[in-house]
Amino acid sequence: MEAVAANPAITVVALCGSLRKGSFNRGLIRSGKSSYPLCPCCFYSYFIPFRPSSLSAAIQICNASIPGMKIEYVNIAPLPFVNTDLEVNGSFPEPVEAFRRKILGADAFLFASPEYNYSMTGPLKNAIDWASRPPNAWANKPAAIVSTGGSFGGGRSQYHLRQVGVYLDLHFINKPELFVRAFEPPQKFDINGNLIDFETKEKLKQVLLSLQIFTLRLQGK
Amino acid sequence: MEAVAANPAITVVALCGSLRKGSFNRGLIRSGKSSYPLCPCCFYSYFIPFRPSSLSAAIQICNASIPGMKIEYVNIAPLPFVNTDLEVNGSFPEPVEAFRRKILGADAFLFASPEYNYSMTGPLKNAIDWASRPPNAWANKPAAIVSTGGSFGGGRSQYHLRQVGVYLDLHFINKPELFVRAFEPPQKFDINGNLIDFETKEKLKQVLLSLQIFTLRLQGK
Amino acid sequence: MEAVAANPAITVVALCGSLRKGSFNRGLIRSGKSSYPLCPCCFYSYFIPFRPSSLSAAIQICNASIPGMKIEYVNIAPLPFVNTDLEVNGSFPEPVEAFRRKILGADAFLFASPEYNYSMTGPLKNAIDWASRPPNAWANKPAAIVSTGGSFGGGRSQYHLRQVGVYLDLHFINKPELFVRAFEPPQKFDINGNLIDFETKEKLKQVLLSLQIFTLRLQGK
Amino acid sequence: MEAVAANPAITVVALCGSLRKGSFNRGLIRSGKSSYPLCPCCFYSYFIPFRPSSLSAAIQICNASIPGMKIEYVNIAPLPFVNTDLEVNGSFPEPVEAFRRKILGADAFLFASPEYNYSMTGPLKNAIDWASRPPNAWANKPAAIVSTGGSFGGGRSQYHLRQVGVYLDLHFINKPELFVRAFEPPQKFDINGNLIDFETKEKLKQVLLSLQIFTLRLQGK
Repeated sequence: MEAVAANPAITVVALCGSLRKGSFNRGLIRSGKSSYPLCPCCFYSYFIPFRPSSLSAAIQICNASIPGMKIEYVNIAPLPFVNTDLEVNGSFPEPVEAFRRKILGADAFLFASPEYNYSMTGPLKNAIDWASRPPNAWANKPAAIVSTGGSFGGGRSQYHLRQVGVYLDLHFINKPELFVRAFEPPQKFDINGNLIDFETKEKLKQVLLSLQIFTLRLQGK
Repeated sequence: MEAVAANPAITVVALCGSLRKGSFNRGLIRSGKSSYPLCPCCFYSYFIPFRPSSLSAAIQICNASIPGMKIEYVNIAPLPFVNTDLEVNGSFPEPVEAFRRKILGADAFLFASPEYNYSMTGPLKNAIDWASRPPNAWANKPAAIVSTGGSFGGGRSQYHLRQVGVYLDLHFINKPELFVRAFEPPQKFDINGNLIDFETKEKLKQVLLSLQIFTLRLQGK
Repeated sequence: MEAVAANPAITVVALCGSLRKGSFNRGLIRSGKSSYPLCPCCFYSYFIPFRPSSLSAAIQICNASIPGMKIEYVNIAPLPFVNTDLEVNGSFPEPVEAFRRKILGADAFLFASPEYNYSMTGPLKNAIDWASRPPNAWANKPAAIVSTGGSFGGGRSQYHLRQVGVYLDLHFINKPELFVRAFEPPQKFDINGNLIDFETKEKLKQVLLSLQIFTLRLQGK
Repeated sequence: MEAVAANPAITVVALCGSLRKGSFNRGLIRSGKSSYPLCPCCFYSYFIPFRPSSLSAAIQICNASIPGMKIEYVNIAPLPFVNTDLEVNGSFPEPVEAFRRKILGADAFLFASPEYNYSMTGPLKNAIDWASRPPNAWANKPAAIVSTGGSFGGGRSQYHLRQVGVYLDLHFINKPELFVRAFEPPQKFDINGNLIDFETKEKLKQVLLSLQIFTLRLQGK
């Protein structure tokens, strides 16, 4: 594959700030068909690590049309609340260790960051903080943010997350920014939580391409 | 008590963003002597709702020298992660219901908000979000923030919390702001986590008096 | 006047962050008919202190339907750049002195704050800074913000302005917030820069009523 | 010069947000000896483009010990207030054109950004906005911020500037951040406005080295 040779493989870890099973933000990453039984009310399968809907769309788009980049959704729900009292002899509780390994192994990050009360969600901030405990697993890597929400499409959470990124030493792409106004026409998600709006899909693809280019640039490739 | 008659009783609910038992931020509220066995490493008693150290100092100061105001520490550790899937038929899990009752019953709020990675902690944001679920329990009440931390003394978290307060409809006092630089001389906390620095105690008292005055002003008293 | 007796007179000083003659933000304050010759391209009269369009609408609404409150537009264009070297023997250049007197005499403030590059405009920040020089003319007064702009309707500038207000000791109303998306349908302003959208006018009125109520509350009336 | 060959020449344009002649922030860039008569009270020469003190120190350090990078101080004082009415037939007033040429020609930027009322200064925001008018002269370049000030050492202005940078498409270095607390011991600046504190100089050098490395990385060199 010429394209793959030209674009060395990049692994992007995708996180969603919402723990709701039917989160539109998770919907921006789903990889399409699921072999698991679905919950009738929220479209997600029970008792298994699910892939939220906005991230699902990102995975589909990436698989279909962005050679050289792979998105892996990592679920933050198993993490306990951050509490340094849980760090014993330099080790973390097992779900934290597993999460930190995923973050350490990634080349770049994609955050689906819903806006709750004009900032990030508690679970997302909590996950970020766990992976920042020394040695900081985020350091020196590129990242992008997408969000869905009301009037600003989740925008206020994105700027708080960017400030957090200064300390984490994340390098966010500047453009394009993606704010999906979930409650305004045209309809963005179908009844199964799949992203169906063409224009939003196209913008999401542009975010992913920008992240790919910035990652290669920062890696000197 | 003439003073009490002149200053009608105000109940302030105090929250701490850190779940660490020995948190300096909680230390800004402790009420002094404890009848519980203390943890030898972090100065807090096991298995019981503890009162963090910065809030402890606030409680002591309030009891000793601010008639007409009472501070009650409310522990956020029992709350689950925010997940609207846990809201069933308009009711919340019991720890959430109990927390919301405390917030609803308060006249004002005191936040001890540590700065983790340049923003609020996940647990604090999580607690705030639970009490904001409709009907929003924070609405139309005054609040103050104190923090301890490194270079900015937790300051970056305070400005994120203030933005959150716009949506919550909290009215924060503007002055004085209190940022305690825990790691710079003079020593602010003793080995038991008690606030011992006179100047910091005095500033904390001014924060409480300002919150009292602003609360009475907003209540039209 | 019964209404006036019930609602003591409040003077609101309105400022606009844009120096453009045809600014939509100024358009949120215009008081209607002008006796001055208008610029054919931007709808504002030449060489005279003009009243911007969003503030114009605010003045009209206030005059028509909010007894007890009066809005006065104050133009920031005559102010020089802030430079403490211009303060001589404790006095300021004359345009600054005049501006500071207006701010000192106000009961409350209405900011029309456009968003330039994700923050306030330079001229607005400059005007704010002049009036903050000791003695701070803003202290302890209520304020509201309105903005028009692209995707967020100027929203990012509002949160930066709110942070500035902490130091100024301004008390901003929390609700309602008004973000006018000038470039999305329905049309908000006519070719003369007049606010014509009924829903936006109604929201603007709610902002003014909220400011009036909060001002009276803080004044203990 | 081997070192120069290895590190291709980078031109950094340095800007200061304060128009005060004796600004400590400008002091972070001065290049040492001046052949101009100095003002007796504020250490800067009259009627000439001056180089502020914090930027002066940066220039000295760069010349002395950072081969391959050159810092040029550009004075923002000649710029008028932003007003798109001043743009005629796609051209800008001459001081704006000159400023934009400097920004366009730079490889990277160094901002000395004082904190006025918890944000950037009006003159700095104004200069930024002029150079952002299409075509945006800042796009896709790296930048660093230094500030001196009170408690946070100007820190609050830095985070507002970083948010502005998202729209400008600036890539800020994350580390190290430099906040100089001008009013706390040890003395940072001498009576002539020269940066004299060894530790601050060393931190400033680290900022410059980080900016150099990040610039080369983004340029693919």
